Amino acid sequence: MPTDVLARLHDALGASVTTDPAALDSTREDRSGWRSATPPLAVVHAASVDDVQAVLRIAHAAGTPVVPRGAGTGLAGGAIASPGAIVLDLSRMNRILEVSEADELAVVEPGVLNGDLNDALAPLGLWFAPDPASRAISSIGGNIATNAGGLLCAKYGVTREAVLGLAVVLADGRLLRTGHRTVKGVTGYDLTALITGSEGTLGVIVEATVRLRPIEAGEVVTVAAAFPGVEAAAAASAAVTAARIRPAVMELIDAAGLARVASFLGATALAGTPLETIAPGEAFLLAQSDSHGAAAEAARIAEAFAAAGGRVTVSTDAAEGERLLAIRRAMHPALAASGQVLIEDVAVPRSRLPEMFRAIEEIGARYGIEIPTIAHAGDGNLHPNFVFAGEEVPGEVWAAADDMFRTAVALGGTLTGEHGVGILKRRWLADELGADSFELQRGIKALFDPTGILNPGVMFESTAGGAATAR
Amino acid sequence: MPTDVLARLHDALGASVTTDPAALDSTREDRSGWRSATPPLAVVHAASVDDVQAVLRIAHAAGTPVVPRGAGTGLAGGAIASPGAIVLDLSRMNRILEVSEADELAVVEPGVLNGDLNDALAPLGLWFAPDPASRAISSIGGNIATNAGGLLCAKYGVTREAVLGLAVVLADGRLLRTGHRTVKGVTGYDLTALITGSEGTLGVIVEATVRLRPIEAGEVVTVAAAFPGVEAAAAASAAVTAARIRPAVMELIDAAGLARVASFLGATALAGTPLETIAPGEAFLLAQSDSHGAAAEAARIAEAFAAAGGRVTVSTDAAEGERLLAIRRAMHPALAASGQVLIEDVAVPRSRLPEMFRAIEEIGARYGIEIPTIAHAGDGNLHPNFVFAGEEVPGEVWAAADDMFRTAVALGGTLTGEHGVGILKRRWLADELGADSFELQRGIKALFDPTGILNPGVMFESTAGGAATAR
Repeated sequence: MPTDVLARLHDALGASVTTDPAALDSTREDRSGWRSATPPLAVVHAASVDDVQAVLRIAHAAGTPVVPRGAGTGLAGGAIASPGAIVLDLSRMNRILEVSEADELAVVEPGVLNGDLNDALAPLGLWFAPDPASRAISSIGGNIATNAGGLLCAKYGVTREAVLGLAVVLADGRLLRTGHRTVKGVTGYDLTALITGSEGTLGVIVEATVRLRPIEAGEVVTVAAAFPGVEAAAAASAAVTAARIRPAVMELIDAAGLARVASFLGATALAGTPLETIAPGEAFLLAQSDSHGAAAEAARIAEAFAAAGGRVTVSTDAAEGERLLAIRRAMHPALAASGQVLIEDVAVPRSRLPEMFRAIEEIGARYGIEIPTIAHAGDGNLHPNFVFAGEEVPGEVWAAADDMFRTAVALGGTLTGEHGVGILKRRWLADELGADSFELQRGIKALFDPTGILNPGVMFESTAGGAATAR
Repeated sequence: MPTDVLARLHDALGASVTTDPAALDSTREDRSGWRSATPPLAVVHAASVDDVQAVLRIAHAAGTPVVPRGAGTGLAGGAIASPGAIVLDLSRMNRILEVSEADELAVVEPGVLNGDLNDALAPLGLWFAPDPASRAISSIGGNIATNAGGLLCAKYGVTREAVLGLAVVLADGRLLRTGHRTVKGVTGYDLTALITGSEGTLGVIVEATVRLRPIEAGEVVTVAAAFPGVEAAAAASAAVTAARIRPAVMELIDAAGLARVASFLGATALAGTPLETIAPGEAFLLAQSDSHGAAAEAARIAEAFAAAGGRVTVSTDAAEGERLLAIRRAMHPALAASGQVLIEDVAVPRSRLPEMFRAIEEIGARYGIEIPTIAHAGDGNLHPNFVFAGEEVPGEVWAAADDMFRTAVALGGTLTGEHGVGILKRRWLADELGADSFELQRGIKALFDPTGILNPGVMFESTAGGAATAR
């Protein structure tokens, strides 16, 4: 049967199909630290909608699983090879098909990188707002498939709010078009929103019509501060919200994270910043204001930070602001330098941030693990990190992660704010959703993909996709 | 069978159930100009989630249709009695259950009026952004059920972007909770977005967690202008977009509409405005800038309006701005004063606005009908109005509406930007969606409502709900 599928793929797609062991192997991983147990059956490098339709028709007829894959930068194992699957690589579908200045929209193929689209838009004074930390390396298709978040969401929204319409190849190869070229449109159910964030389990996104914004005029002002502890920093971020200020960026690093970042960056990089000297237990909070009124807004933020006990720096200089933001950006490299990293992604209502930080500390203490954490404080999204040695995620890390997810959900939050469920978090999906929602979601999956060939094992448990382990 | 259902309703809900002819009759209409052929079986005034669950359990067991109804202000016939149905009136569920300043959210029952929520929020410096023209009289539940738009959407988004989570009673009486108290959250498919805009066909919204915004600081500046014709006005609005300006409000009235508004308001109301003297064929365009930088933005808008041939007034005075906006608000009263009004609701990409205006003029000429039109020019949403005498929509009005919908869809737009499909536009649903999308949408409906009791005839054709006529 697999031989037969391969022959049909070769017949239909020729040199776009590869079974080269190195190419197969490269699809077993993403950036989550997970690696599939086996390589896929084949990788198809699709170059067109027709290619994608041809793959799906063949796979549908044969019952062969298909894993849609973009830039491979996922953090939840949502696009890694599953046993016996065709990996449908969309990274060659990377053309910007249209930019309409008059309608403030772009039509793109799924493989266009977020950063490349923004580079093309900048000279026009336009901007695609979704801003995952991975924007330089992640694709628009992947951003949409995971409903990616990022640093700017409290002010500028998540990816869903920037997607106007989609072209999607369905499980049997038919091409579905959803949405409009308009901001408004309420004809029928919102399939565009349903497919956004569906992680390749309902169809393969082959084109997206995305909403653009005018680039914000005015300066960017950065406010950074060191605080005696993470709870003081969390209180400072809450005070900003309470003052009805909505900065573009508000990022928080706890003490464990900050110590690692400081030692990773070294004294020279931190000279002249609030981190020039760090006392043990200190945490870091950074905010950026943009657009008109940025300076006045930043002054109020600085006041709030100082009132909460922060040692504050304000910078209107772009290069200096970038240097302060680089402290935040150094978090993941700093962790990766010391071992394998499992990045978690819980979100809680902003008011529960101090409780969540406290819970993470307690969970760490309970299992004897340090859990350095960074948060998008403006929207309550935390990334607690587990750092470990070796190929396997240690049992106590799983146990600690389990405690953490349950705490986030109990605080009114969610087990994934922006990375997606993938294969990493599917074991908790039903716990968070509840039985009725879970049943409806499975029903939607069955409606779109009756034979279950689209990304099996992602989001929902499946025997076929169960065999992946931490890298 | 109906007797049996009535008895069970009375047993379970007592005095909340009414079969009083006047009460039944009042549910046969909304603000669309449509009236159902028959009164419903009964009206239930639900006061709690338990009441709603009890109604659905009884209806589900008996196969009785249920029409969820809020404030009755719909414009598409989406909440009017269908034959043999229980009308589930949610207007008594009008409590604001919680306002969290720290999390910038409110939890409300569905019957809370949009304006009442905003009145309660204003002293806190907070604001629920969805802003349908009906905000004083329409309910949050109805706003969500139709994914309502309004005047501010180009800048502040549609209702969907303000809904964080829902509690929904399913067709069989189970209570489903969707979403979170967080801005981010990607666990599973986005049922919150799927149910938003579903017009009561997937479940009954009994609670909503909605996102609030800080009230914009700074002044509001109004720019209004008369133009030689509607195409010049449309070109002026396009010039504003092209200048990368996104005003809070941008409203356009064509010549036919403006003539009626001017005669309705009278000379005194227009003294000192650009409409003090109107030449035949002139059109009206109004923009408002808010927040920081409003004055500078408004100056650029005024320049663009003047360059496009507008006779421009700029006002920084709140009362004067309100007086200019009152010209726009007078559109519907002016039309209603001269006959029955059928309000349409197409949307097109902004760049196609001039073409759509031209098409409306041609369609009007073809059928010998005047079609006064108002547009949310900032987002390409047009409300062409048909004014006629008598109880029945004349055949040529339907023919003209049919031409208009097909033109909007051909221009890359949609047959409803914000009012919903209801019973008025269901005949065009499949045309706009295409066969594959239509089939998936019917599948979603069947998944949530296998026995088809929820708002039959709304959105999809159904023999049961087919018997309504224009009032």
